[in-house]
Order: sequence, then C-alpha cells, then structure tokens
Amino acid sequence: MSDDGLRAGMAATNRIFEEEVVGRRDFGALDRVYTRDARILPPGAAMIEGLDAIKDFWRSSVEGMDVTVVRLITLDVTPLGDTAIEVARGEIETRGGAAPIPIKYVVAWKREAGSWRWHVDIWNASA
Amino acid sequence: MSDDGLRAGMAATNRIFEEEVVGRRDFGALDRVYTRDARILPPGAAMIEGLDAIKDFWRSSVEGMDVTVVRLITLDVTPLGDTAIEVARGEIETRGGAAPIPIKYVVAWKREAGSWRWHVDIWNASA
Repeated sequence: MSDDGLRAGMAATNRIFEEEVVGRRDFGALDRVYTRDARILPPGAAMIEGLDAIKDFWRSSVEGMDVTVVRLITLDVTPLGDTAIEVARGEIETRGGAAPIPIKYVVAWKREAGSWRWHVDIWNASA
Repeated sequence: MSDDGLRAGMAATNRIFEEEVVGRRDFGALDRVYTRDARILPPGAAMIEGLDAIKDFWRSSVEGMDVTVVRLITLDVTPLGDTAIEVARGEIETRGGAAPIPIKYVVAWKREAGSWRWHVDIWNASA
C-alpha cells in the first residue's frame, strides 16, 4: 500500500461521508465509511460501538441538528501498515446556523474489505 | 518491544501524569509524559502544539479548575511498532466538585527517548 493509495483511499471515504451520508442523508452509506466494529467517541455522550449504533447516532444527529454540510480537512496522516492515524479539522453547517461550527478530530483508520475506513473516531469543538 | 513492555511503559507514563503533574502540580514532569512535538486537542479550544504550550495549557487548566485528582483508565491498546493507539476513559475531580467528571479519550502513543509518551492526545466529556 503506497502512501498515495492511502491518501486517495482516505479522500474517497471522506467524500462518502460528506456527500452521501450528510449531503443525501443516506445513512446506509456509513457501511462504506466505518469498519464493522468501529467506535465513535462523541462529545457529551458515552462511547458508541458497532455500525448499527453508529448509524443511529448519525441519523439522529444530522436530522436533529439539521446539518446541511460537513467539510472534512485532513491536517496530517501517520501511515502504520494497515492502520493510519489522522489529525484533522472539520466544519459543520446547519440550516439556519449563523456560521460554520469548527471542530477538530482524530481518526484511527483501518483497511477493511479493500478500502480505508474509520475505525476509531473522536472529535470535539474547536471554540 | 513486547506487549508487556508497552503496557508497563504506558502505565508508568500515566502514573507520572496522575501523581506528579496533577497530584503534585509539577508541570515540568510533562517532559516525561509527552513527546517533544506532541499535540493536544482540548475541547472548546484550538489544537495546541509543542511541549511548552502544552505545559502552559495544563498549568492553567489544573490550577484554574483546581483539579485534585485525575484517573486514567485504559480500555484497549493497539500496538503498532513504535506507535500504539489507546482508547481510554478518565475521571477528573476538582476541589469542591460534587462528583468526578467523566471523560473519554484517544492517545496516539510514541516511543521516544526509551519511554512511551503521548504524541497525539484528544478527549471530550462523556456526559
């Protein structure tokens, strides 16, 4: 796996989240974003394990906050074989929201079923 | 590096944070907790880079909130050569605080100068 392959694979997965999950509210597309046994660590809540529970979380959050746009911006990546550690920032836009909400996050990526997916995903507010 | 060595090294570093940094408010001990070019991603603030700025952050946070105890509880570790990914939870006690504050976090560990240190450190509230 070249570093180019990793970068391209990460970008492809991030576009699925931005365009399909958030853009089209297709929460089934999360099957191609997260690993089977992924975990997310959302602010203000307990850790959530497994794809079904993660889908419930995102459906409820995106619909509940009426999120219209998420932008994911990789700051740097440490490749570690079939794993990679990403430090990143993001912006969340909600319908009627005054300004994009800035966040930052760390994702432990894992190669699964031939694609790069989010295996551990933790974020928090930047302001 | 055996897995035992990793686990023991991680425990030793965590005890420095709990006992020396928080317990004795010895912020110089952070030299033995974080790597030289570590980054922390605190909730509600921008990312902070480098050991000097990280020391300033912890001094200001521990003294400002009057933190008396921090407990760090490793949930699981993925060893990756000279790196390891930890998923963990913690508890923060403050003087006069009603109950411990539950947090969760992810640390990308790195072996530096013969010991295991926090290289990327992100956390958020669990409730």
